[in-house]
Amino acid sequence: MKRKIELVNNELTKIYPANTALNSILADSMNYSLSAGGKRLRPIMLMAAADAAGTNGEAFCRIACALEFVHTYSLIHDDLPAMDNDDYRRGKLTNHKVYGDATAILAGDALLTMAFDIITSVNTVKPDILLKVIKELAYAAGAEGMVGGQVIDLQSENKRINIDELRKLHSAKTGALFCAAIRIGAILAEASDEQLQALTRYAKEFGLAFQITDDILDVIGDNEKIGKPVGSDEKNHKSTYVSLLSLEKAQKLAKASVDNAVQALDIFGDTADFLQSLAKYLLTRQN
Amino acid sequence: MKRKIELVNNELTKIYPANTALNSILADSMNYSLSAGGKRLRPIMLMAAADAAGTNGEAFCRIACALEFVHTYSLIHDDLPAMDNDDYRRGKLTNHKVYGDATAILAGDALLTMAFDIITSVNTVKPDILLKVIKELAYAAGAEGMVGGQVIDLQSENKRINIDELRKLHSAKTGALFCAAIRIGAILAEASDEQLQALTRYAKEFGLAFQITDDILDVIGDNEKIGKPVGSDEKNHKSTYVSLLSLEKAQKLAKASVDNAVQALDIFGDTADFLQSLAKYLLTRQN
Repeated sequence: MKRKIELVNNELTKIYPANTALNSILADSMNYSLSAGGKRLRPIMLMAAADAAGTNGEAFCRIACALEFVHTYSLIHDDLPAMDNDDYRRGKLTNHKVYGDATAILAGDALLTMAFDIITSVNTVKPDILLKVIKELAYAAGAEGMVGGQVIDLQSENKRINIDELRKLHSAKTGALFCAAIRIGAILAEASDEQLQALTRYAKEFGLAFQITDDILDVIGDNEKIGKPVGSDEKNHKSTYVSLLSLEKAQKLAKASVDNAVQALDIFGDTADFLQSLAKYLLTRQN
Repeated sequence: MKRKIELVNNELTKIYPANTALNSILADSMNYSLSAGGKRLRPIMLMAAADAAGTNGEAFCRIACALEFVHTYSLIHDDLPAMDNDDYRRGKLTNHKVYGDATAILAGDALLTMAFDIITSVNTVKPDILLKVIKELAYAAGAEGMVGGQVIDLQSENKRINIDELRKLHSAKTGALFCAAIRIGAILAEASDEQLQALTRYAKEFGLAFQITDDILDVIGDNEKIGKPVGSDEKNHKSTYVSLLSLEKAQKLAKASVDNAVQALDIFGDTADFLQSLAKYLLTRQN
């Protein structure tokens, strides 16, 4: 895991400074959030899915980084005063607290746009495959995925939603991009339909377990380790798996999702070991 | 022109409602700005460039609409309180005045993202050509183009910049997307290098003339016809071609750019008539 994070971080440094010569403040703002760390889960999952399907996933590290651009843009916009109004992220001030709202909005816009530029610049993958990759990403990040989920999230503040609505919200807001990461890895590996379906099942269960454990951490986590204040869901009157189900039931549901995720990859041999471990790690994550 | 606008408007209605089933408020917000009218210049220029290069440009109407998605997103974000803080656009309240800042930011994000989804969904163009199209668009809309230009624009408020800086600003903020529209049309028509270069020269001169005439309209235009208050540049302490050069000199420079644009297309026969007329129209535009 540590080695994979370093691989992604190293690749990220190769991409972003070279592409931002026009305006140094915009470049600084983009780089500030891109280099803020994080687990690089989406790029790592993309590469691991390609590994599972029998190719060398690291060969797709550049495309994997495009997902981190999209993820980073979404965090910058989510943190804005007009949205969640968060001051801290990963232990650092949020982008708009440092660069102001306007530059933060534009840095997010530029990161999203550049993600597509990055993918089209890859010349080691066949054009028809790259187009499928772009389509997966654009769909997952758009109105039917991440952005749509964020709108539902904002609409759901200060009111009690039920567990089905919560699931729909997160399946769009965070699940869609995990799903795209895994599916893009499979597409790049030219996986069979059976493999693609199994990996998609894994991604959906992973996304669910990720969100439940995120909600749990917001209740019982450690400020220092998370890098932002715990209790923000309660403060923002957000429905969570914990508030709707109880802590104990949420923990059980997380465990069940992880089991399902692991099981979904049974058709693979040990090429899927890493993805299975990644799902299990969610149950012990501390940030 | 009128027929082409109708063609684009008709194609737009085919795209956007179908893709926004997850959240109706998000869909409403996107559609509100997409359907607010406007001259649909960028889609029309894309199709006209393909016409000039000897194919039937209307066959690329769907891809042309993707440019209108990108243009519309940029207007929504530019109008935000954190940016230009405008209340009216094309005679209607701006998006955030109707839907709130959060939804407006997200509607912009979704429009930008969906533009790439739209292009990847076209199956009548070869994948390697579509990839070139996406690359042109992503580059023009990103940190080195439109978004980078908007950051410079915001940084230039309340201070006097010189004419070279003004040109650089607008060449990125508005010029890059005009340039992409024309170049994408040429790429789709599989134009020769000579044709692509001539069309690119046209696009750059067109972009310059467009911006100068925009600045002129903000001084001597008619509120009703423009759909927003004149004098906003002065209100926002923005440097313009008029404020830096004088009205008369700005008019002369606009005329010279239009002449250059028209001349750039001399290598084409009458297939470029429409683009030449479009450049000339800038000198008499009222909105």
